Amino acid sequence: MTERDLNMQVLSQARAHGGVQGVYTMDSEACGCEMTFAVFMPPQAANGPCPVLWYLSGLTCTHQNVMDKGEYRKQAAARGVIIVCPDTSPRGDRVPDDATNWQFGKGAGFYLDATEIPWNENYQMETHILSELTELIASKFPADMTRQGVFGHSMGGHGALIFALKNPDRFKSCSAFAPIVQPSTSDWSIKAFERYLGKDPARWRKHDATVLIEDGARFDEFLVDQGTADEFLTTGLKPELLETACKAAGIPLTLRMQEGYDHSYNFISTFMTEHIDWHAERL
Amino acid sequence: MTERDLNMQVLSQARAHGGVQGVYTMDSEACGCEMTFAVFMPPQAANGPCPVLWYLSGLTCTHQNVMDKGEYRKQAAARGVIIVCPDTSPRGDRVPDDATNWQFGKGAGFYLDATEIPWNENYQMETHILSELTELIASKFPADMTRQGVFGHSMGGHGALIFALKNPDRFKSCSAFAPIVQPSTSDWSIKAFERYLGKDPARWRKHDATVLIEDGARFDEFLVDQGTADEFLTTGLKPELLETACKAAGIPLTLRMQEGYDHSYNFISTFMTEHIDWHAERL
Repeated sequence: MTERDLNMQVLSQARAHGGVQGVYTMDSEACGCEMTFAVFMPPQAANGPCPVLWYLSGLTCTHQNVMDKGEYRKQAAARGVIIVCPDTSPRGDRVPDDATNWQFGKGAGFYLDATEIPWNENYQMETHILSELTELIASKFPADMTRQGVFGHSMGGHGALIFALKNPDRFKSCSAFAPIVQPSTSDWSIKAFERYLGKDPARWRKHDATVLIEDGARFDEFLVDQGTADEFLTTGLKPELLETACKAAGIPLTLRMQEGYDHSYNFISTFMTEHIDWHAERL
Repeated sequence: MTERDLNMQVLSQARAHGGVQGVYTMDSEACGCEMTFAVFMPPQAANGPCPVLWYLSGLTCTHQNVMDKGEYRKQAAARGVIIVCPDTSPRGDRVPDDATNWQFGKGAGFYLDATEIPWNENYQMETHILSELTELIASKFPADMTRQGVFGHSMGGHGALIFALKNPDRFKSCSAFAPIVQPSTSDWSIKAFERYLGKDPARWRKHDATVLIEDGARFDEFLVDQGTADEFLTTGLKPELLETACKAAGIPLTLRMQEGYDHSYNFISTFMTEHIDWHAERL
């Protein structure tokens, strides 16, 4: 593979929990724009390559929300895990958007490669993350790419589940906070799928965790936390659909309903340490 | 004492780390405006009163910065400590400000009661926090007001030190992250002191930690963390001045220079757990 000039730029680097929290940009060929991402390098990275845990964020987020509110650095430093936080969509004035809709366009890339005009020009988040950003992390950071895990929140929980199911040899572990488990029926995502992928639901199948499982995709096991006071529990999220699919397929799923927790980073940060431990034990 | 109608309103409450992170407003008589503050109630508060640890924020902050980035909830929940985070100044369109200056006016109340026109009408942060907000916390939350500690960052580290030195019977513990230890000479605060308190430096003495110590104020002991890569170390902060003052007065000071840390919440959040432990052991 010829190394591409990914033109990584450092926006900021700060010592945190004994490691370094950085924010970087790269020229994204897939998205046709500059893309920003955050990387936390634990102190152990000074002594050799560390495993990589990808965190995929939810609707409206950038790389920054989890960096500010996710409380991941302490445990990532304790366990020696690199945390990579991509953005959730292409960005910039030249990227088409639907500014009135927070469930589509900027901040709502749904971790797929769009096929429909005009969105297909820039909305290539699957390729951005799984190809070019992966290539960059491998070449610029002390990362052990044989040990990768993925997790995420809400739309990013959807992203984590489909990335793991489609790449079971690459990802050794997967977990999610309040994921959209069936985006092809969720009121949060069905309209976005129509616009990114076209109206034929057959084209959505490889971007939907429960449908992927129905179609034969497998993964070793999942951990999912879901707050019972989540305002989107019965509309956009529906974790029971993942439970049914996993049961039918024989995929071990640890689904924990967390009493009284909502959909916010108050919920995510509470269970972040346990999720990082879950991944560290499997990486 | 007649109970005032403090008109507390709930802006938000969310379960976090087994407790509740809330944001509230009150009608501030001292500041002549509505004031916002955050309270984290640990799970132990369900079983009885818990000690109260006040966190005072730095320049430009509101109650929200530390709530988002401070990573205090996990350890506060583990130790059973209530965390109260006041705002840093009066707010609202009717409050005078110097919008061109981030070191004065809104976001820069310096934890003092201003004496000079027009600032004295609203900039009464010492009274707001130590009187009316204290009264509200005592009356509305399961707080054990015989067990209070105080800590803070930068301008809020200054606030913590002077609150402790002026109220050693009230506060059982005090610590600070990168505090302004001598605001009457710091380039960050000298102009603000002139405008809030008048140009006579004699009027600044009771609002300056090192000067208070020179003038005889005492406290049991202090913990101070300071990053060596803090861009304000030798201009606004100068921890060695506190070291000199404490040494002369026989006040035990644990001053830890933290290699490579800057002035941001990356620094604060790294040492937050240890500070909460420091307070919990003394409360």
